[in-house]
Amino acid sequence: MRIGMRRGRAGALVAGLALMGSALAGEVIEEGIGTEYEQFDLVRVAGELEHPWSVAFLPDGGYLVTERTGALKHVRDGEVTTVDGVPGVVARGQGGLLDVSLHPGFAGNGLVYFTYVTGDSDQSYTALARGRLEDGALHEVEELFRQDRGGSNPGHFGSRLAWQADGTLLMTIGDRRQEDPAQDLASHTGSLVRLTEDGKAPADNPFADRDDAQPHIFAYGLRNSQGLVVDPADGTIWLTDHGPRGGDELNRIEAGGNYGWPVVSLGRDYRSEEPFGEARRDADMTDPVYEFLPTLAPSGLALVTADRFEAWQGNLLAGGLRAERILRIVIEDDEVVHMEELLHGKIGRIRDVREGPEGHVYVLTDHSDGGLYRLE
Amino acid sequence: MRIGMRRGRAGALVAGLALMGSALAGEVIEEGIGTEYEQFDLVRVAGELEHPWSVAFLPDGGYLVTERTGALKHVRDGEVTTVDGVPGVVARGQGGLLDVSLHPGFAGNGLVYFTYVTGDSDQSYTALARGRLEDGALHEVEELFRQDRGGSNPGHFGSRLAWQADGTLLMTIGDRRQEDPAQDLASHTGSLVRLTEDGKAPADNPFADRDDAQPHIFAYGLRNSQGLVVDPADGTIWLTDHGPRGGDELNRIEAGGNYGWPVVSLGRDYRSEEPFGEARRDADMTDPVYEFLPTLAPSGLALVTADRFEAWQGNLLAGGLRAERILRIVIEDDEVVHMEELLHGKIGRIRDVREGPEGHVYVLTDHSDGGLYRLE
Repeated sequence: MRIGMRRGRAGALVAGLALMGSALAGEVIEEGIGTEYEQFDLVRVAGELEHPWSVAFLPDGGYLVTERTGALKHVRDGEVTTVDGVPGVVARGQGGLLDVSLHPGFAGNGLVYFTYVTGDSDQSYTALARGRLEDGALHEVEELFRQDRGGSNPGHFGSRLAWQADGTLLMTIGDRRQEDPAQDLASHTGSLVRLTEDGKAPADNPFADRDDAQPHIFAYGLRNSQGLVVDPADGTIWLTDHGPRGGDELNRIEAGGNYGWPVVSLGRDYRSEEPFGEARRDADMTDPVYEFLPTLAPSGLALVTADRFEAWQGNLLAGGLRAERILRIVIEDDEVVHMEELLHGKIGRIRDVREGPEGHVYVLTDHSDGGLYRLE
Repeated sequence: MRIGMRRGRAGALVAGLALMGSALAGEVIEEGIGTEYEQFDLVRVAGELEHPWSVAFLPDGGYLVTERTGALKHVRDGEVTTVDGVPGVVARGQGGLLDVSLHPGFAGNGLVYFTYVTGDSDQSYTALARGRLEDGALHEVEELFRQDRGGSNPGHFGSRLAWQADGTLLMTIGDRRQEDPAQDLASHTGSLVRLTEDGKAPADNPFADRDDAQPHIFAYGLRNSQGLVVDPADGTIWLTDHGPRGGDELNRIEAGGNYGWPVVSLGRDYRSEEPFGEARRDADMTDPVYEFLPTLAPSGLALVTADRFEAWQGNLLAGGLRAERILRIVIEDDEVVHMEELLHGKIGRIRDVREGPEGHVYVLTDHSDGGLYRLE
């Protein structure tokens, strides 16, 4: 799994600092990894992170990293410290402390948004909170949004965040392995919600005027979406969703769209390999842009916008847990026209992929001794 | 690459013989490899094969293996000997001694069919010959068919063989990196030909009555097809074709079908990543059943018919050179509904995949010290 570690160079952390003259600290794990069009060094920014789930980039060059087990970590210059003020979470199964995202105005207001599982093990809920980061701690933490229906199953929490240019915040809500509610507009279960920065339903949400629908819902029929990115150029929303065996999907999200789960699915039952759902397609529901075969088990999703990796500009980078790789995805006219595997088998299960502020690509690995890596 | 070898057990060859009470000799490389639905041991039947290309199963439990460099090997009980009587071949680039296939009546007539590159390095041709196997040598070897136009480029020879139930023999002819002729019915280049057992054009071939077409052609618009299998149950022809970057295809072949190359292709130019061909699709040409993304570089193709791997019955197994894996492909109603990776990274570049006579799966690896492996 961790072949590259044997090749790590002691002291590279300090050397890296000196050489680059910036805060880009880290230990070079492997140099000059070749790909079809780009070559990169794989650098471990921080290790010994316990099932890290998400990373956010602070303006001063540091990082905030959530650990699923409940801690929010601050990483800077290779040092990892714990951020105080995070509420208790239900760290059970796939749940715990999940996504973290800075408010677009963070430089001025210091607001950090994060998702987590709250309640108790009998009835737990995916929730969104925010706090103000100051002196290494979160202050004035408040819960902004909580899904309406809880569940006892410790899987499928969803909860990836992405800001839109209009200042609203998108958040995925998993189906908690309760299959029917994903088609039920009266419940947040199995949906993508669109919230104001205060966690309310914006008046222009697609179902805001309906009495029988939760006004927060932006799109539905989703299973467990853990990859979400908004294209800053045109606002396109890309989302990856965990299907049952064989049904992992890349979707382009439209307001009000029904993505089919569990009525329509390209996947198969885990045990019987029989088709899942009533049909593979339905004219009233939206087909995915792509179905990942073989299974990817999609996690974080990034869009390459900078020119640091010039040949990858405009491509999506989809992390895979079970697949232990990142897929570089080239899309034209809503069709996947090319794909390349990156980092396959080098660092293990990929939990998150992000484009950093200087155009580097950052990756988190989902292990008890997981790490934050940079492709540079 | 060859991680498994460290786990090989000395003496397993003899032990295997004694235990199984059959000719299934081999060295167990790894036991109990888990997959979604089946578990198998990986056994090396023979090593030290020089770029083996194809394997045929003799009725006595032995194997014939072609080495691309020009030798035909006989493997039995772990011993590898050279079969005499094979004509000289132009072993250059991707060319040399390629496929081998027994006549359906081999038990009575001893006829072995094989494909190879003949001519010289300036002008070489994919050809088909047969000989009678007796006392460890081929006798009365005769060339039965040679493609009409040669080429100097040492790539894209195609040349996979598959017998149909009517006694005709299918053979793929690569495009030799000459792109236009694949659309030219007057040339065999870039096509699938259908031959009598004597290498002639059957009268019922789709273009047999046309003056402007080669009568051997059964389907065209192909690039470099190295995977070919006929379903014994219903005669369906499955073919995998090397596309340009990103355009590897799985095709279901119909008589007279045009598979588009190079006019229509889902692939991209190797260097510019610009789309290849004039369009991605054309109503007059046949779309592939599936486009492999990321690149597979498809080699041998097998169909699981036996019940030894019961959960895989009816599935295709597609070998990958660059991808260093086998894809198990589940198809329903001409749509790929599920896929699983097998042997990824365990033995290297996969050159051929075959179902053996007792329902075992056999694999050849494309290395200078390649091997013949069995999944059992």
